[in-house]
Amino acid sequence: MSSSTEERRLTARGRATRDRIVAAAATLMYERGVAGTSTEDILKAARVTSPSQLYHYFGDKRALVQAVVRHQTERVLRFQRPLLSRLDSFEALQAWRDAVVQAQHARDCRGGCPMGSLAAELSDHDPEARAQLVAGYAQWEGAIRDGLRAMQQRGELDADADTGRLALALLTALQGGLVMTQIRRDTTALEAALDTMIDQIRSHATL
Amino acid sequence: MSSSTEERRLTARGRATRDRIVAAAATLMYERGVAGTSTEDILKAARVTSPSQLYHYFGDKRALVQAVVRHQTERVLRFQRPLLSRLDSFEALQAWRDAVVQAQHARDCRGGCPMGSLAAELSDHDPEARAQLVAGYAQWEGAIRDGLRAMQQRGELDADADTGRLALALLTALQGGLVMTQIRRDTTALEAALDTMIDQIRSHATL
Repeated sequence: MSSSTEERRLTARGRATRDRIVAAAATLMYERGVAGTSTEDILKAARVTSPSQLYHYFGDKRALVQAVVRHQTERVLRFQRPLLSRLDSFEALQAWRDAVVQAQHARDCRGGCPMGSLAAELSDHDPEARAQLVAGYAQWEGAIRDGLRAMQQRGELDADADTGRLALALLTALQGGLVMTQIRRDTTALEAALDTMIDQIRSHATL
Repeated sequence: MSSSTEERRLTARGRATRDRIVAAAATLMYERGVAGTSTEDILKAARVTSPSQLYHYFGDKRALVQAVVRHQTERVLRFQRPLLSRLDSFEALQAWRDAVVQAQHARDCRGGCPMGSLAAELSDHDPEARAQLVAGYAQWEGAIRDGLRAMQQRGELDADADTGRLALALLTALQGGLVMTQIRRDTTALEAALDTMIDQIRSHATL
């Protein structure tokens, strides 16, 4: 039975409990890592008294981890969506860059990327989690690329600019910037990387 | 007593045992993360029979983790040194880029950056580990910057190129590329990010 079938069969109350467990697990795993988070801690944070509930909803920790990956991917893309959906001008790129930097300051430069942190810990060991993360990053990359292509179609970027490659490079610079922000606890590296990538995109501007 | 004083006081045999424990811990923590590595696993991998040895050499797991951070930082910088020490031409930048990409293929695109993986897991919780990582990244950044400055001093880069910012951006792109390589299990994103950064440096070339 796929997890989405499982989800549809839950009652509203069961659904709420399941969501509470996923949200609690996501928060703890973001703060402490997947391996550093015990099922006891998750149950406590989700105010679930019976350990059997966890197994009822998820079967095992691995299935819960996958639900957390889905939860964090959706959360990141939801946060990014308003900006990404119209990332088709230099003003929009600048506003997106500013919002990303601002979001790091808002959390004291801690935590890194909610998707990237999971990815670093899980990619080598959990093929399902990795597949979900690959799909999440592909959406993110696609949204950036769509914006650059729109600029190109309007003639604002050179016809020979490789928008796919620039979009992937920009997303990659962002990921590195989030890691460096967490290490340095300042956004200088994030800003340097994003600004340099945007300069490079700007070098293809026709205006 | 500082850990370096501790190290000096060890006999050659004690030193060898200590190094074996650090190397075993570093390998396991790289594969499984810090939280996912038990002291039992470390003792077993280092062929150390008595748990008291770990406490004799390191006091606690936190001190061992710091030794691992130092070990991995030195290892990464030692690998990078031959290339970084003369990263002062576009040919050298290209050779460094190729070596980094090649190193990922050699390990099947797994594992990510040995420093970055530790950083993602430890930065928020272990101030000493974070301080060591900050110092390690500063060395790395400094070596890249020195190369770009040498190019600038020879008049190969514009006098107004911000070599400090470009060096930091390039290192940040590399970090992002290593995360993306681990997730995607290919080097396309790493190559796109490094090439785009090098293109941007090239845009400051005077020749």
